Amino acid sequence: MRAFKFELTLEKVLNTGAETFPSQKIYYRDLREYTFSEFREKALALANSLRKLGVKRGDRVAVIDWDTDVYLLSYYGVPLSGGVLHTVNIRYPPELILKTMLHAEDRWIIVRDEFLPLLEKGKDYLKSVGLIAYSESKETPKSPLNPTNFWELLNEEPLNSPDVSENDMATIFYTSGTTGEPKGVWFTHKQLIYHAEAVALAGTRPPLNLNNNDVYMILVPMFHVHSWGHPYIFMMTGSAYVLPGRYDPKAELELIGKYNVTYSAMVPTILYMILSHEEVGKYVNHLKKWKVVIGGSALPEGLANTAKQMGITVIGGYGLSETCPVLTLGTYNAQVINEEEKVRFAEQITAGTPLPFVELKIVNSSMEPEKTGEIGEIVVRAPWTATEYFKDPEKTERLWAGGWLHTGDLGFLDKYGYLHIVDREKDAIKSGGEFIPSILLESAISSHPSVGQVAVIGKKDEKWGERPVAFIVPKGSISKEDLRNFLQNLAEQGKIQKWWIPDDFIFVQSLPLTSTNKIDKKELRKMTS
Amino acid sequence: MRAFKFELTLEKVLNTGAETFPSQKIYYRDLREYTFSEFREKALALANSLRKLGVKRGDRVAVIDWDTDVYLLSYYGVPLSGGVLHTVNIRYPPELILKTMLHAEDRWIIVRDEFLPLLEKGKDYLKSVGLIAYSESKETPKSPLNPTNFWELLNEEPLNSPDVSENDMATIFYTSGTTGEPKGVWFTHKQLIYHAEAVALAGTRPPLNLNNNDVYMILVPMFHVHSWGHPYIFMMTGSAYVLPGRYDPKAELELIGKYNVTYSAMVPTILYMILSHEEVGKYVNHLKKWKVVIGGSALPEGLANTAKQMGITVIGGYGLSETCPVLTLGTYNAQVINEEEKVRFAEQITAGTPLPFVELKIVNSSMEPEKTGEIGEIVVRAPWTATEYFKDPEKTERLWAGGWLHTGDLGFLDKYGYLHIVDREKDAIKSGGEFIPSILLESAISSHPSVGQVAVIGKKDEKWGERPVAFIVPKGSISKEDLRNFLQNLAEQGKIQKWWIPDDFIFVQSLPLTSTNKIDKKELRKMTS
Repeated sequence: MRAFKFELTLEKVLNTGAETFPSQKIYYRDLREYTFSEFREKALALANSLRKLGVKRGDRVAVIDWDTDVYLLSYYGVPLSGGVLHTVNIRYPPELILKTMLHAEDRWIIVRDEFLPLLEKGKDYLKSVGLIAYSESKETPKSPLNPTNFWELLNEEPLNSPDVSENDMATIFYTSGTTGEPKGVWFTHKQLIYHAEAVALAGTRPPLNLNNNDVYMILVPMFHVHSWGHPYIFMMTGSAYVLPGRYDPKAELELIGKYNVTYSAMVPTILYMILSHEEVGKYVNHLKKWKVVIGGSALPEGLANTAKQMGITVIGGYGLSETCPVLTLGTYNAQVINEEEKVRFAEQITAGTPLPFVELKIVNSSMEPEKTGEIGEIVVRAPWTATEYFKDPEKTERLWAGGWLHTGDLGFLDKYGYLHIVDREKDAIKSGGEFIPSILLESAISSHPSVGQVAVIGKKDEKWGERPVAFIVPKGSISKEDLRNFLQNLAEQGKIQKWWIPDDFIFVQSLPLTSTNKIDKKELRKMTS
Repeated sequence: MRAFKFELTLEKVLNTGAETFPSQKIYYRDLREYTFSEFREKALALANSLRKLGVKRGDRVAVIDWDTDVYLLSYYGVPLSGGVLHTVNIRYPPELILKTMLHAEDRWIIVRDEFLPLLEKGKDYLKSVGLIAYSESKETPKSPLNPTNFWELLNEEPLNSPDVSENDMATIFYTSGTTGEPKGVWFTHKQLIYHAEAVALAGTRPPLNLNNNDVYMILVPMFHVHSWGHPYIFMMTGSAYVLPGRYDPKAELELIGKYNVTYSAMVPTILYMILSHEEVGKYVNHLKKWKVVIGGSALPEGLANTAKQMGITVIGGYGLSETCPVLTLGTYNAQVINEEEKVRFAEQITAGTPLPFVELKIVNSSMEPEKTGEIGEIVVRAPWTATEYFKDPEKTERLWAGGWLHTGDLGFLDKYGYLHIVDREKDAIKSGGEFIPSILLESAISSHPSVGQVAVIGKKDEKWGERPVAFIVPKGSISKEDLRNFLQNLAEQGKIQKWWIPDDFIFVQSLPLTSTNKIDKKELRKMTS
């Protein structure tokens, strides 16, 4: 008898949760709930049903849904059936959705009833695809496409010893960044687990101090780089998990109150929307116990200060689709923890320090490392970095040029070892031959008490090449003159350069967003050109 | 350009520590200290020197030392040179030490000067071995064997990109359990990392709540299953690390005071010695912040209560040499955390719940699972379980019979999912055809306020086959009659069976210990036969 070959598949994550924390809970809004033990049964029942329906090893299975229990079951059930979970970006226009599904060669679709009309575009394609649909009422959704009822799949016996390997593709999704054609990015069972375990470990550091006493409600859509790994993380940490369904700030506040949510992750826009909600005052006592990780875009200083004043513990983080995604978190290292509160706060709202096993360098264009404080491109390696763009060797080549994954982001490391992102390469503003780091400038503007949100873009300029223009969502009375004086003042304090001060300030009611709720600078550039 | 193949080697653990926590500290007593950043340099310098000396991939390198900085540097430097770290059990008799070194085919030895005489036994063998020695004075130890001075090896340039694979053998050591010939057990880089990461994650759970604010001082010898993984764990968690050198309760208390140690792990005997030390009273304020994991042997209830009364947070744990070693820890799961303090305490001092990715079953002799509360053999699988006994296919076969690793321990799972170890199979007492679980009986006896330590063994008996006899180290005035009445009382309360009450109580000043400070029952059996 030889030693058992232990494979790091998602089954092991289910087992870890269900064996060590059998009675811990998962909640879908206030509609349905599962213990970890029940959840494992259902997820393995789904895996078994999918196999019986005919899902074969490597078959892509698309899911089109809000953040629901159905989605969470699919996060485990699909990969454990041998299939590959394609988390479809429901914020894409229907034509683009179909394009990604054709590129992924999806053979199966799991869809919430309200998204069925969206599939009309792909009628011909759908003839060769297995369709599984569900409705909240549990009745089979009525559709000419004649779908299988999802809920019936959960009545099957749990699948015993799923026949999958740790190096099997488990998930795939498409990322456009903020420009360009969507690219397919995929991860294996093992990579998802490596990532989840490292995020879990880093999350235990102060000021997050996460453990199994925490209640998670993640506000990163489940189609967006698998909610940054949280649907796998919470099963390892044994924390309760709240699924919010379709996003809505009022409902989110209610769920925070109902379930005593203590931990969330989201892009800055979502936090801004919650904290600007008229009923936020009702939840002050809950918000004092709330810990929030901000990623996707840099955390503006103004928003961080607002959150802090409400007693929220907010930290920054950094990653990209190609990195599963988390690379760094703004938790405290041994140096920062001994500094005064002001320094600690300033560091926690940077992009932070690398997770366990992340290797991160700031390099110049010859791939030579930059010194502390000097700006360069961020390149990385980790056990969970994507090995390729799906069916795209050419872009893969560029991604991995020189044996390091190129993030396309510009940043520097400070004296404490914390990463500061100063710009996306493609968002950089070049004025008079010099770069203006738009993220630093935005953060400075956001620290004005009457600025709600801000985005700075480069506008073509005959003399300088480009000059910055700022779009502002005000949250109080404010004039262009006020802002100019405010920035003038910051420049005199040496916090920004004088020539960074935007040529114009445009006041708007809201900013255009990308499908993942980041500010859409492409759209803003169109508005000024 | 293809994606970088990320290998989970110990270099990545060093990088994780040195990049994220560069200024965090390692202390060797009050004699030497290193930042993580300095430590990485030195460990990689050692690796480079070893290669230059001629260490080849797969060469076994023995270390013979107390728990020192030299040992810790070797924990990384040896495996990163391509060598295999053999952590020699210095508590074995010299002849047995030599036997294990010959079986491991050690090609190199790193030794503290005071252990040089111990090597005299193996003069012939040593002719073909490279010898590296050190003294605290940093002078080259004088010896006819003409050793290389360890300290000089640290002046080398750090090794750049060690040429090792995650599946390379990284460590080897010998385990005799409590009986029998020593067996060689070895682990790969990847297994050590899987284990360390899972222990780190479980350690963040209440009531331990470990994070990078904690200061570790591990009192599990570095030859004893690599100090239960801690020399790798602390680099991932970013916690400070104190190396105590040769064990001595007074010195340990002083180090706890000096460095504000908050976390330790040890066998029960060591905790007993510390808490019985006459100067313990000086450290009451420190002990209130002290968290202790007890493993190696079951945590007796009496000792746990003593620790609790002093404000120490003490929990149980379980594992064996073949499992790297940790399998379970007495941290709180979702059920226990909501129970009253009394229940929480009773559960935390059991062996606990499985670590992430540990699969654990209680089975009968046909390998069928037992129900909750029923006693059977504990069998396990984990990503870090040993794949074999070195050069011993026959014992490997038995270890992995049926595709599960056989622990040889008897236990049951309670209604909260916590593991209780009731006996080592070979320590079990069979009386009148029925088993008396010696660990449960010992725990009952230990709850008498005047019992310091206790061990129960089976004595041959004509009528019953075996009858229990208890060896007692008293910590106050106590008679056999007192003990009999006390146990009679427990039997009436239904806590033990009446027929478990030992036939005799033997009062002794101390109990014989094995090389890893467990109580040596083999020796006790000899005394009664």
